[in-house]
Amino acid sequence: MIRISIDAMGGDHGPDVVVPALATVATRRPDIRFIVYGREEIVGPILARFPKLAGVSELIHCEVAVRMDDKPSQALRNGRWKSSMWKAIEAVKNGTADACISAGNTGALMAMSKFCLRTMATIDRPAIAAIWPTLRGESVVLDVGATIGADAHQLVDFAILGTGMARSVFGVERPTVGLLNVGVEEIKGQEEVKDAGRMLREANLASMDYRGFVEGNDIGKGTVDVVVTEGFSGNIALKTAEGTARQFAQYLREAMSRTLMARLGYILARSAFNRLREKLDVGRSNGGVFLGLNGIVVKSHGGADANGFAAAVELGYDMVRNRLLDRIEADLDLFHARNPKAASLQRSGAETEEE
Amino acid sequence: MIRISIDAMGGDHGPDVVVPALATVATRRPDIRFIVYGREEIVGPILARFPKLAGVSELIHCEVAVRMDDKPSQALRNGRWKSSMWKAIEAVKNGTADACISAGNTGALMAMSKFCLRTMATIDRPAIAAIWPTLRGESVVLDVGATIGADAHQLVDFAILGTGMARSVFGVERPTVGLLNVGVEEIKGQEEVKDAGRMLREANLASMDYRGFVEGNDIGKGTVDVVVTEGFSGNIALKTAEGTARQFAQYLREAMSRTLMARLGYILARSAFNRLREKLDVGRSNGGVFLGLNGIVVKSHGGADANGFAAAVELGYDMVRNRLLDRIEADLDLFHARNPKAASLQRSGAETEEE
Repeated sequence: MIRISIDAMGGDHGPDVVVPALATVATRRPDIRFIVYGREEIVGPILARFPKLAGVSELIHCEVAVRMDDKPSQALRNGRWKSSMWKAIEAVKNGTADACISAGNTGALMAMSKFCLRTMATIDRPAIAAIWPTLRGESVVLDVGATIGADAHQLVDFAILGTGMARSVFGVERPTVGLLNVGVEEIKGQEEVKDAGRMLREANLASMDYRGFVEGNDIGKGTVDVVVTEGFSGNIALKTAEGTARQFAQYLREAMSRTLMARLGYILARSAFNRLREKLDVGRSNGGVFLGLNGIVVKSHGGADANGFAAAVELGYDMVRNRLLDRIEADLDLFHARNPKAASLQRSGAETEEE
Repeated sequence: MIRISIDAMGGDHGPDVVVPALATVATRRPDIRFIVYGREEIVGPILARFPKLAGVSELIHCEVAVRMDDKPSQALRNGRWKSSMWKAIEAVKNGTADACISAGNTGALMAMSKFCLRTMATIDRPAIAAIWPTLRGESVVLDVGATIGADAHQLVDFAILGTGMARSVFGVERPTVGLLNVGVEEIKGQEEVKDAGRMLREANLASMDYRGFVEGNDIGKGTVDVVVTEGFSGNIALKTAEGTARQFAQYLREAMSRTLMARLGYILARSAFNRLREKLDVGRSNGGVFLGLNGIVVKSHGGADANGFAAAVELGYDMVRNRLLDRIEADLDLFHARNPKAASLQRSGAETEEE
């Protein structure tokens, strides 16, 4: 049995999308159980429409809901201990749930997750990992925006975290890993990327096939299973890809309505176009996974529909099923056992890093 | 009359693509003159096939050609004073040409351009600007990879350089400008982006409509005419967009050949698809413009066909015609006259920056 805690009040559409999504998942994964946090008078009636779902769910009333435009500090001040978002995360901490899913605002969810679950022992900072559709299937890209900047040790941590995720989500035994870099040689800067590359090569972990540097266009090609970068570049890469995909979809619509022949062609090929549209949902369908915390938190896209939210729930389910946290902890232990200096350096770094 | 110096040996296809491209441009821009640098025995026979072009061109023999895989330092060592790339740049320095176009390797072209032309008086570092197709037309994005990292002063310089380019290429009197950033608030880091924003707002230049921060997805939307960022993020954004566009094209091909109906639809809509393909050439068609140097250098994409190289030549032509350098110099003077402190800070920064 896998128990998932749900923040029913998050996202642009709240329980209207969340509850139907859970109903879908409940029929597909019979061993799933839900603890649903939200306002009883709103969530209760929607839940009642899905008797099967209601049978595997417990609804817990929360007076407070974090708003989509709350700043992280506001959300912590007003929503800690009592909001549906906090309660859903806390269920993971208390062990009443195995993973938490929310479509609420990213900054608030990250702030609360860090505060409640804390980072893993040897990890300075959590990362947000996205599942990126590629020409070869899917890749994990991280960090896509948890923190700006990362030193070499943090990039190595991200590589280990991302590897654990790729193993537990894609079922690849030894995922290929690349560090995102720019192609021009002999230029200054980004020493941390080069240092991280050296450390990964030297560590030579059994669970990770480190392949060196990759460039922006390698993400879409699917050159590696895990693409590692710091949060600023990662966020810009993700958003730029989203923008380009939307641009392409718009061009396509325009092109296909310009002439009678094109319109006729469009009608004939409609199912192909629909398939195409699904494929292009870069970063929208599953949202982000928070890695490096003592618990699994999945952030569904705020604008996700029921299919999108269901995908996020199933992603959380799969990571629990495939023992994501155990895998990550084993890899971290192995890395630090082999690199005691790195571990101590990292700890001292962490102290100066915290405020 | 506008005189363009051409490195005929650059690019994956060399003079086979370069010379036919020049022939096209010569018919479209009757007041253009070319100084073509390359190996006479190779370029001469191709030029002879285009008598009209030969009439407006001077071919100057260069024994040495920079290779596409030469490192910048190698290229400088082996190609300085004598290669077709160097000679084409030097023609701009000597005033025998108004702009230089090369499809040769980016690192080598930038190293030689910096060495030969030097940066403008108040500019620390040159930037590479890309013309980015958007839903609203085109935008200038810089820096897409000249240097990794940029402080606030350098970002302000890039904003002024990009504004000059948008004015002279798009003919917009007061281009809108945005600084690329990530959306999450209340996170550490990227102080330089915030500082640059403050400086641009305070400077309140007549030629620039500064609009604040933009995110990755705003590039494709065309939210602003000029997107400013440092070279690492800029390069990753550009390459990621290229990757996504190529991914989309591949998905489209697959989708349109899967069923008989889809294939029939494709045939009917073929011209619409061809138009679409052209639109998606993010960063390929025109290549990059080197800004911040005492002279105009345009880098055409190495894999460009004759149309692509012709577009790069016409871009150089347009920037000369519309007095790009004068506009930039006037804006820089205005900015530094109003911000004498910024100017002196910048100069001292430049000293510590240089090796």
